[in-house]
Amino acid sequence: MTNPSMTKQIRLNAFDMNCAGHLSPGLWRHPRDRSTSYKDLDYWTFLARTLERGRFDGLFLADVLGVYDVFAGNPDAAIRNGAQVPLNDPLLLVPAMAAVTEHLGFGVTCTLSYEPPYTFARRISTLDHLTKGRIGWNIVTGYLDSAAKGLGQARQTGHDRRYDIAEEYMAVVYKLWEGSWEDDAVVIDREAGIFAHPDKVHRVRHEGEHYRVDALHLSEPSPQRTPLLYQAGASPKGRDFAARHAECVFIGGHSKTAMAATVADLRARAARHGRDPSEILVFCRATVVPGRSEAEAQAKLAEYRSYVSEEGALALLSGWTGIDLSRYGPDEPIRHERNDAIHSAVEEIAGPNAVRTWTVRDLALATGIGGGLPLFVGDPAGIADAFQDWIDATDVDGFNLSYVVTPESFVDFVDLVVPELQRRGIYKRDYEPGTLREKLRGPGQARLPGHHPAAAHRRPGATRWAAE
Amino acid sequence: MTNPSMTKQIRLNAFDMNCAGHLSPGLWRHPRDRSTSYKDLDYWTFLARTLERGRFDGLFLADVLGVYDVFAGNPDAAIRNGAQVPLNDPLLLVPAMAAVTEHLGFGVTCTLSYEPPYTFARRISTLDHLTKGRIGWNIVTGYLDSAAKGLGQARQTGHDRRYDIAEEYMAVVYKLWEGSWEDDAVVIDREAGIFAHPDKVHRVRHEGEHYRVDALHLSEPSPQRTPLLYQAGASPKGRDFAARHAECVFIGGHSKTAMAATVADLRARAARHGRDPSEILVFCRATVVPGRSEAEAQAKLAEYRSYVSEEGALALLSGWTGIDLSRYGPDEPIRHERNDAIHSAVEEIAGPNAVRTWTVRDLALATGIGGGLPLFVGDPAGIADAFQDWIDATDVDGFNLSYVVTPESFVDFVDLVVPELQRRGIYKRDYEPGTLREKLRGPGQARLPGHHPAAAHRRPGATRWAAE
Repeated sequence: MTNPSMTKQIRLNAFDMNCAGHLSPGLWRHPRDRSTSYKDLDYWTFLARTLERGRFDGLFLADVLGVYDVFAGNPDAAIRNGAQVPLNDPLLLVPAMAAVTEHLGFGVTCTLSYEPPYTFARRISTLDHLTKGRIGWNIVTGYLDSAAKGLGQARQTGHDRRYDIAEEYMAVVYKLWEGSWEDDAVVIDREAGIFAHPDKVHRVRHEGEHYRVDALHLSEPSPQRTPLLYQAGASPKGRDFAARHAECVFIGGHSKTAMAATVADLRARAARHGRDPSEILVFCRATVVPGRSEAEAQAKLAEYRSYVSEEGALALLSGWTGIDLSRYGPDEPIRHERNDAIHSAVEEIAGPNAVRTWTVRDLALATGIGGGLPLFVGDPAGIADAFQDWIDATDVDGFNLSYVVTPESFVDFVDLVVPELQRRGIYKRDYEPGTLREKLRGPGQARLPGHHPAAAHRRPGATRWAAE
Repeated sequence: MTNPSMTKQIRLNAFDMNCAGHLSPGLWRHPRDRSTSYKDLDYWTFLARTLERGRFDGLFLADVLGVYDVFAGNPDAAIRNGAQVPLNDPLLLVPAMAAVTEHLGFGVTCTLSYEPPYTFARRISTLDHLTKGRIGWNIVTGYLDSAAKGLGQARQTGHDRRYDIAEEYMAVVYKLWEGSWEDDAVVIDREAGIFAHPDKVHRVRHEGEHYRVDALHLSEPSPQRTPLLYQAGASPKGRDFAARHAECVFIGGHSKTAMAATVADLRARAARHGRDPSEILVFCRATVVPGRSEAEAQAKLAEYRSYVSEEGALALLSGWTGIDLSRYGPDEPIRHERNDAIHSAVEEIAGPNAVRTWTVRDLALATGIGGGLPLFVGDPAGIADAFQDWIDATDVDGFNLSYVVTPESFVDFVDLVVPELQRRGIYKRDYEPGTLREKLRGPGQARLPGHHPAAAHRRPGATRWAAE
């Protein structure tokens, strides 16, 4: 037990999106890539089975509700390169994948800004029932102006105000999930003819600044009630929201030093909210290109690189950073003095040392392999070593693995890397029983703990209908 | 060809809801009923396979967004009897059922009042992709005050105004489904590195009284683009909406005479909108209790009847009619002079002759067997005869079959009645190829015809992004 990484179990999610290419723009052109089959259930059921075979904790599905139109001020580059457009709804993939798996979790990104809490709560409860408690929700408040315009607004609501609205939204959905139906409300008593006891079903009344609800939750209690809560906020306000609500946090970052600081900050914020800092599981985005040998892996990476679409990557980068990268020549070195924002973007993606030497093209090509660093390339032992180093240095709990070529990236990982991680005792050979929350937290932890903000809504405040 | 019913093909949907009991309150107590398993994917995949084995055109899923709280002014009776509460989201059942079937269609009820057209259009396009063009949408504007209260309103919007809003909503979703992506926009050209041609993807701009959108549709063209459109409006305004938009109409009614008048009125209204009157397929709600013999069927019905929950049926009836039936004694005869609305309700459910002799209990018990008349009980030949009579007399195209005990009602129908209908040549032995619309309309009819209001949004009005 002298080396903690020898026993800490690595957590793994696969990272995908209901579109072609996801974080590897242009790789849909690769002859073995199947990501243009995102419209086919077969793609998703094969992926789910593969991930369960590899004992992945979950499949994490990204989403946005708009297109990337910052590059050149229009969506042409995104459309031409299929860079996250077209993009279908992620929630609807889950039932088909749940039907062919028993343990795999599903973390789905849903933007709370555009759906009433009353109907959203029912959608998630429905999925928690159908998956037998394997659903997670990545809480997102939206960041693309193009999404807001689709929904009748001139632009995205301001960042801090979005989090204020999100706090109220969470209160409403907690009331619906936790406070409407008591655990023993539904009895299905065939002899007595009682399906549920009306005095154990409570009306949720909420009169807030942004939301009003006066209703029963439509769904009976599901295995987890509140879904496993993911969050990915990077700003101080976002991190504080995560520290208060999230059970899993998804972060990105290029360097161990920067990531270690992020993780420490998150855990310190959680402690300030009265939580055990280790209670938050931190997943770091990563790309893995494994080979049976180091040489095979490097050759595979070189071949993958030849398919990256520079323009597609710049369309994504422009959307993420808000900087129109079409205004720079591809061979221009990125200089700090020119633009603080682009400097930060490069530092985020490529690391501080790259800033003075990288060109715009370098930035695009690095981003196009699964979204940027960290990138783990090598034979199984080399990748396992690098995973352990990364975890030791950063205190993350695991990785959110994006693909370069799908499903090849996931199949390679399951066939090559998983056995090595299992051999080292740092990755599970079998799933724990129970819900997704129990698999991550242990037996008896199907529901959120009593100190979580959701728990405050369990009974007080719920009002008997008949008493009105 | 002298008897048209000998060759007219009967259309069949199964009618279910993501809850226990659906239109047979209390029947969840029946020892063979599995409707309390509505939370399990297995229930739904078994049902879908059974229906496809029986060559059903579709599974039609009802939905409401509130509880039945008119009876005694509270939801207690509905909760105690499990009368359509708890109730989960229907859309999320479709992907799992689509994965285990190839031909079965899915008609899903979605209330347009509570979801922005931009995100709703993507959900439906996603399902049309995942099902390979087998999705239908039952357009509903909502009728329960309890639903409106869950969504922050004091009460339901007025009936006529709901249809005005619905007209605008349809215009927006048609623009998104039909007018944003040209058919040849997506090319997935691996050599040229072109996923889609930006100049063939159009921005949808809508500035109306109720909705504003300024966006690309997020989904690429799906097999049907606009889903198969169902509607069930019974009021003059509702029928006119159906006559303009709907491809399939779902109606209820107890008597052949009344139903024939409804069907004739619908077809006449369709003609006034410039449509072929036969273009609208009319499905009539019906319950079938088949046996190998008439005696076996009658015995089965008597046994089913003993499980009907009178209180549960009155909770549903009170919600549908808006009349609090708790104010009447169960043995009170229903008299016209007392209440015109309840008189109409009885006439609707039990027929004009029942009005003077039926008690409130009679009304409840009749309603509790699949929702009321028509009820077809008998051996396969008797049921086939009755189907043909009903179709000849009313000009309906088929039936929306509700269950009494599920999946038994559907399994019985498939095993006993379907072979008899096939033997008579009035029911298909195999599905037509293609999308749901093609299966109902014929080859080449995957998309709506050119005279449908959706077609007007196909290109004109779409604006090039770059031209802005």
